[in-house]
Amino acid sequence: CNFSLICNQATIKLPSCKIFFSHDPIKIVRARGQYMYDEKGQRYLDCINNVAHVGHSHPDVVRAGAQQMELLNTNSRFLHDNLVLYAQRLQATLPDKLSVCYFVNSGSEANDLALRLAWQYTGHKDVITLNNAYHGHVSSLIDISPYKFHQLSDAEQNQFVHVAPSPDVYRGKYRADHPDPATAYADDVKDIINKAHEKGGKIAAFIAESLQSCGGQVIPPSGYFQKVAEHVRQAGGVFIADEVQVGFGRVGTHFWAFQLQGEDFVPDIVTMGKPIGNGHPMSCVVTTREVAEAFMSSGMEYFNTFGGNPVSCAIGLAVLDVIEKEDLQGNALRVGSYLTELLEKQREKHPLVGDIRWINTEKHRHKTENYNMHAPRSIYILKEQHILLSADGPHRNVLKFKPPLCFTKEDADLVVEKIDRILTGTTLDSEENGHQHHNGLLHGRESGGQVLQTKCLKT
Amino acid sequence: CNFSLICNQATIKLPSCKIFFSHDPIKIVRARGQYMYDEKGQRYLDCINNVAHVGHSHPDVVRAGAQQMELLNTNSRFLHDNLVLYAQRLQATLPDKLSVCYFVNSGSEANDLALRLAWQYTGHKDVITLNNAYHGHVSSLIDISPYKFHQLSDAEQNQFVHVAPSPDVYRGKYRADHPDPATAYADDVKDIINKAHEKGGKIAAFIAESLQSCGGQVIPPSGYFQKVAEHVRQAGGVFIADEVQVGFGRVGTHFWAFQLQGEDFVPDIVTMGKPIGNGHPMSCVVTTREVAEAFMSSGMEYFNTFGGNPVSCAIGLAVLDVIEKEDLQGNALRVGSYLTELLEKQREKHPLVGDIRWINTEKHRHKTENYNMHAPRSIYILKEQHILLSADGPHRNVLKFKPPLCFTKEDADLVVEKIDRILTGTTLDSEENGHQHHNGLLHGRESGGQVLQTKCLKT
Repeated sequence: CNFSLICNQATIKLPSCKIFFSHDPIKIVRARGQYMYDEKGQRYLDCINNVAHVGHSHPDVVRAGAQQMELLNTNSRFLHDNLVLYAQRLQATLPDKLSVCYFVNSGSEANDLALRLAWQYTGHKDVITLNNAYHGHVSSLIDISPYKFHQLSDAEQNQFVHVAPSPDVYRGKYRADHPDPATAYADDVKDIINKAHEKGGKIAAFIAESLQSCGGQVIPPSGYFQKVAEHVRQAGGVFIADEVQVGFGRVGTHFWAFQLQGEDFVPDIVTMGKPIGNGHPMSCVVTTREVAEAFMSSGMEYFNTFGGNPVSCAIGLAVLDVIEKEDLQGNALRVGSYLTELLEKQREKHPLVGDIRWINTEKHRHKTENYNMHAPRSIYILKEQHILLSADGPHRNVLKFKPPLCFTKEDADLVVEKIDRILTGTTLDSEENGHQHHNGLLHGRESGGQVLQTKCLKT
Repeated sequence: CNFSLICNQATIKLPSCKIFFSHDPIKIVRARGQYMYDEKGQRYLDCINNVAHVGHSHPDVVRAGAQQMELLNTNSRFLHDNLVLYAQRLQATLPDKLSVCYFVNSGSEANDLALRLAWQYTGHKDVITLNNAYHGHVSSLIDISPYKFHQLSDAEQNQFVHVAPSPDVYRGKYRADHPDPATAYADDVKDIINKAHEKGGKIAAFIAESLQSCGGQVIPPSGYFQKVAEHVRQAGGVFIADEVQVGFGRVGTHFWAFQLQGEDFVPDIVTMGKPIGNGHPMSCVVTTREVAEAFMSSGMEYFNTFGGNPVSCAIGLAVLDVIEKEDLQGNALRVGSYLTELLEKQREKHPLVGDIRWINTEKHRHKTENYNMHAPRSIYILKEQHILLSADGPHRNVLKFKPPLCFTKEDADLVVEKIDRILTGTTLDSEENGHQHHNGLLHGRESGGQVLQTKCLKT
């Protein structure tokens, strides 16, 4: 936990920040690949760590960081090759239009800068965000994160912020039986714009994770982003794609999750974070030349002490190298598909499982809403069996897989076998108890995992 | 520069972020201690880098980082000894009351969190900041940084922000000839509070760097913080001491610059940054148990992905170890005093030099205001002689020394000898030109350096 109270005699943890398995936390002392080890040497399979993207303590990444630290680590007031090389490599993964990089230190710094770029470029102030969204912990981002500001007892929504429905076709406003959920959800955004205009507001930006993570692993229907972008740009605003949790090859078929919407969709601003440095504090904002020039013309220079330093750039380059060299995007696709198949079988076998969401599966046959609130407890049972998994979503009934990309089919077999046993126990127990799932072992319909895709630790 | 435009064929720098010596930038490829080396192997004496606090690429710090990276780098959702050990070590440098640490990634994240703590603890919204202040680059901090928002052509001051006069006894509202400048400047803060109250505002916080850096190396008169804290607390607000640029032993006599005001002064919140990890992206907010408990009671947890990770904490611990082992605080005091003496002789010799500001000198005999705007050019001449120095302050007429703390008396001799030659040339030239300092070589009265004390690269 990054929050620690030191009294004179003792160190006490205050629960401002939740740690994993807080009733019985684990003390991890080392990690390698997809495995973590506690102080007794016990090995855990890590299914919850999308920060250690290419595997914990990957030797190539560690070496790149150590060598550059030994040579030079200074702020970016000097020229340095690493910065240019890294910006070029990142740009090569993106559409040509996205050509200007700003290097910062965290996903929060990236999203805050994205807002500043949008405000300056458009001259507008209003921001549209999705329900259940989480975009970061600095004050400007709490304002646009319903996932956070709904936690406040005296929540007071910023007058410049508008919340659109989450484009969730399983549990949302328009579902799989709707003839055109993409248009319907995008029209809701258009309505919000019109209402803002009536009140004299002007839209600076629409911001969304390319796949909503903390919001419950929501995959927007195909074409939704294109239609939203059209409405938002017509109002003079920009489209910000938040790839902090879902980028860098995790979706398997593409390097960036926004690319799932098709080649005809290009955001105006893309933000990156978590996996970018395999744990090293760094992040990036990429935008168009037009937006960057407008920002520059404000007369206020942008400077970030640590952003783009030679060590961060060396580490970022090493991460890109490893993804390519070890074909980790391909592995995400192969193992992700395999895990999805295994979980689909679980869904067919166990009525408690409602939906399996991965990029290439669109099965929403079950709409049963009789989930229960006990998914969080099942992760404790898995932990006893040395599997680290987490639960998230507005109802905390979504089990999320977001392991390092070196996860294997054998790892998938192992974790699904354990889940099967828990589900079987739950089902038996449920039947014994007249279908009351009160044993707290497992989540209900609509649980299930989003495979190798996204992660959020903020439950 | 952390801003890079990548076109299809070429990499072009856009000037959104100023680099040092932008007309003829240096490409530094390695650094060690207080020296940096360009790609031709030429050595530069670094007088401008307070991020590389214990010396560039200090082997103990590099080793600590590399070893921990190899072992484990994960987010702070697990227990880890480094976090607790580091929090205890930091706490030991501070008054007992400051007992809760939040680990974040940058000075900006630290100051934003400080505001969130203040808002939540007090239930108030208004913030008092000093003129010319700089507190960071995220949007909430631009609002409280006149140094930044005055750069905007269409600057629109946030209605919750109040700007108090900078307590500058050399060029400010109340000067050295005032019988009690501390009380006079503090009374101005009290007036601001009263006016805010008349308009229905409520004071959440007063924020100030313990010594104003970008604002022109301003050392507040003794007792000023105590009096301000009294007024602010009476209004229900808290006192935030920003130590991002000035902390960690740089002032020589104390570990923290706010301690210069006396043992009877304890801020409610202290923020740290730049030097804390010798270049590694990390920072910290320390506050009282009362403030932390109020923050916790909001119901919104605080989580920061990279903040307090095992690598950052290992590096932070190594930095504290080196400061202690090599007595760098003592060195700052010894070499700082020596450099101040040398510069005082320069002031006596050259009428262009107006004031030398260091913690234990309070000489403000000269009040001549005939400075000119050419200090920035003199740093180019020094650069040709392989000395890296910078100019800052609202008039860019303050030469600032903020080298790594391993700076030696020999280094001080070297740089002052070079400055002497420039000043001598300028004086001769000025006399030849009828006292018109149009040769652009040097700054005027009130220039001079703040020794080993603080740094800002944001000019």
